[in-house]
Amino acid sequence: MEGFKYRRRVDYSDTDLGGIVHFSRFFVYMETAEHEFLRARGTSVDRTVNGVRISWPRVSATCDFKSPARFGDVLDVRVRVVRRGVKSMTYGFEFWRGDTLLAEGQTTAVCCIMHPNRRPEPVEIPDWFARAIENDT
Amino acid sequence: MEGFKYRRRVDYSDTDLGGIVHFSRFFVYMETAEHEFLRARGTSVDRTVNGVRISWPRVSATCDFKSPARFGDVLDVRVRVVRRGVKSMTYGFEFWRGDTLLAEGQTTAVCCIMHPNRRPEPVEIPDWFARAIENDT
Amino acid sequence: MEGFKYRRRVDYSDTDLGGIVHFSRFFVYMETAEHEFLRARGTSVDRTVNGVRISWPRVSATCDFKSPARFGDVLDVRVRVVRRGVKSMTYGFEFWRGDTLLAEGQTTAVCCIMHPNRRPEPVEIPDWFARAIENDT
Amino acid sequence: MEGFKYRRRVDYSDTDLGGIVHFSRFFVYMETAEHEFLRARGTSVDRTVNGVRISWPRVSATCDFKSPARFGDVLDVRVRVVRRGVKSMTYGFEFWRGDTLLAEGQTTAVCCIMHPNRRPEPVEIPDWFARAIENDT
Repeated sequence: MEGFKYRRRVDYSDTDLGGIVHFSRFFVYMETAEHEFLRARGTSVDRTVNGVRISWPRVSATCDFKSPARFGDVLDVRVRVVRRGVKSMTYGFEFWRGDTLLAEGQTTAVCCIMHPNRRPEPVEIPDWFARAIENDT
Repeated sequence: MEGFKYRRRVDYSDTDLGGIVHFSRFFVYMETAEHEFLRARGTSVDRTVNGVRISWPRVSATCDFKSPARFGDVLDVRVRVVRRGVKSMTYGFEFWRGDTLLAEGQTTAVCCIMHPNRRPEPVEIPDWFARAIENDT
Repeated sequence: MEGFKYRRRVDYSDTDLGGIVHFSRFFVYMETAEHEFLRARGTSVDRTVNGVRISWPRVSATCDFKSPARFGDVLDVRVRVVRRGVKSMTYGFEFWRGDTLLAEGQTTAVCCIMHPNRRPEPVEIPDWFARAIENDT
Repeated sequence: MEGFKYRRRVDYSDTDLGGIVHFSRFFVYMETAEHEFLRARGTSVDRTVNGVRISWPRVSATCDFKSPARFGDVLDVRVRVVRRGVKSMTYGFEFWRGDTLLAEGQTTAVCCIMHPNRRPEPVEIPDWFARAIENDT
């Protein structure tokens, strides 16, 4: 898997009494990897353009766990665009510790206008976002 | 969906700057719902029998998000056994707020002997566990 | 210590590789106990009255840990008002597992108007809040 | 404040519906800063020497919050040894975003032998740990 790489060391608080990283934390790592991917392309997951705040609520997330990660491990999270839809983005993630693949996951998020005190409103991906990721799709 | 119901109120710390529950927290709710399901059947997700510690590392987790949950919401998480394998269990979850289905998820965990300082060792589901859930499968 | 009691069972994800509840989770328990305390008095930590959104950013938090809590433990968190200031509230907390005192903590929060995209603005505690807690001070 | 500096970017999941970093996350940042401080000195917060596992359960933690941190902020956490006791260590922390001091905290941890299935046993700080930090005390 090619693509962007986000490196992160496992915090003590990411572990559980099984001695390994709690599975829910992989979803946090995925999200941060996605955000760093976007940052590296000059954009952001939560951005206000011309007074319109665009953010990306998730509609699905999945992860397969192959080998545990432990306190102090340095994880390389590889990120790629699996699919660019009209209103949604699907990202794929691989978790590596050196040469060992620890986990693989995917998330799909929907491009939404964020209104105060109302539900997010799905909209087509704006040009400024599409341009930022055009070399990844 | 029939089955066991686990009720939980959303903590403030479960939310994010989007004003809704962070998606990773649904996985924590699923796990706790599974544990309460097992507790209600007189067993536990981490139990030592005859000196052998059995626990259940996850091999996959997935969730589809349909509608956001918010601070203070009371969530009913419905739990059922989707599949009982030889060495694994797959649980299904539905998240309800009143009559509104907010999310659906699934997790698969593998029955393992937990050795100190070694990787978990997958083993067949022991009788004491199988008996506890026999009316759910 | 008299006062309101909030009961909570320790989640698996609240533990760390030391086999005990991670110390940062006690602060989450304190916060939720405070919110349940306010809920029981008919108010909320984040409430909009006449178009003004009032919330309570924390200015300090402290906890002393005496004995560890573990997965599945049922904790009773006792809450009381230590001090009601002009613009702030200080709450005290005790964590009990049965007859064992596990931890004691305190948090101070400042009454603020929450403006979108600006820093919280400290203000005097409004009457509707003061009345809700008048029997606790 | 002199001393070791740990840099970290705020995750989206570290924020809450107030739009700022949840106060409990500062305690996680402090802990990771402490661990990175120890790593930089060639030791670890959880280490087994001659079959004896030494770790450091916390006995107190405190934090004063002066200014909020937000999603994407780069925080510099400064770490120093406030006090080296016979069996305990007290660390001090400052959180900076550029020239702005956001928070200050302190944690005290007790040197313990970690026995399986028993409470941690407080012991004198071993020589290998004391030597690692001798230039900081």
